[in-house]
Amino acid sequence: MTDHRIDVTLAHASRLLNHGPTVLVSAAHAGQRNIMAAAWAMPLDFDPPKVAVVIDKATFTRQLIDASGSFALQLPCAAQADLCFSVGSSSGAALAAAGDDKFSRLGLATFAGRQVDAPLLAGCVAWLECRVIAWPAVQAAHDLFLAEVVAAQADGRVFSGGRWQFDAAPPALRTLHHLGGGQFILPGEAVRGQMLPGLAPG
Amino acid sequence: MTDHRIDVTLAHASRLLNHGPTVLVSAAHAGQRNIMAAAWAMPLDFDPPKVAVVIDKATFTRQLIDASGSFALQLPCAAQADLCFSVGSSSGAALAAAGDDKFSRLGLATFAGRQVDAPLLAGCVAWLECRVIAWPAVQAAHDLFLAEVVAAQADGRVFSGGRWQFDAAPPALRTLHHLGGGQFILPGEAVRGQMLPGLAPG
Repeated sequence: MTDHRIDVTLAHASRLLNHGPTVLVSAAHAGQRNIMAAAWAMPLDFDPPKVAVVIDKATFTRQLIDASGSFALQLPCAAQADLCFSVGSSSGAALAAAGDDKFSRLGLATFAGRQVDAPLLAGCVAWLECRVIAWPAVQAAHDLFLAEVVAAQADGRVFSGGRWQFDAAPPALRTLHHLGGGQFILPGEAVRGQMLPGLAPG
Repeated sequence: MTDHRIDVTLAHASRLLNHGPTVLVSAAHAGQRNIMAAAWAMPLDFDPPKVAVVIDKATFTRQLIDASGSFALQLPCAAQADLCFSVGSSSGAALAAAGDDKFSRLGLATFAGRQVDAPLLAGCVAWLECRVIAWPAVQAAHDLFLAEVVAAQADGRVFSGGRWQFDAAPPALRTLHHLGGGQFILPGEAVRGQMLPGLAPG
């Protein structure tokens, strides 16, 4: 695979999630690793960038995050719809008990992050390495994790200059947005908002 | 305006936000009201449905939410891109000081909610009435509000049977997804994920 990855300056990291894509959450600890899908993720702050993501207590990924204090969010693209649905519809716990994992079962290529131990999935269009900001009561009550983004990368064919460039990129690189039940929509037409008369900017 | 609103059963409310649309946040208290844009909103739970949304301390909407303990999220559609950008790029505080608000300045029609005092903006494609779940430390540290959805409605032309039906609806009713700087993308092509061999569901 040709490597199209570029570094994303941390001040632009929130832009990766701003339009509401479904993400894959990966984590690793003590020789085990997993990856799951999460539609419930969003930016939480610009600079330093932070994110919020819901990670169910029942998932194996949650165990790895609780143990390691870090995870990676990565954005699957249209070419990975089956992969996204599949890792989101199966549990890593039973595989781990057998010394296996989703990556090896599906033959998924990964690469190492710069800041965290979570494996980064090749073929995605963006990667955000995250360190958990400890809110134990919130994690326990709502399965909600807040985290600081400590490194970010993107596929430079579809994200450059701090912006998604869906119009200029191959359609297979568009982000996935989960409607439910394995049905996704892809980004389509672009629209620019204009200031209406009657209100003053500010 | 013909009224196409339908009730959305609370168990389906998370579906309204699952694909990552930009929302408008409205709130009211003691005769004052405001509406602002927020790209950082997501579901937090299914049933009872909950949401998470980032609302900056500097906004007038935040004052109204802090005072009332409730707000509404509504999903603007493609026909409202200018409106969404405009209410998201101007402050209600100066207008309120002059006894005015964004609704009257722009001639916006609203209707009353069933459960909360926040005005609901006509012409949107979904409305979620929300009561704040008090996490004062999280609100203070991260501007993050968690809330329970206590009523939900949608435009039945584009959301029915618990699902968005973008393919079947007029294009002007598609949701807005903010890329940044007033640039939005609309939902486009639909893709269905299929289970890959090698993983077991569950």
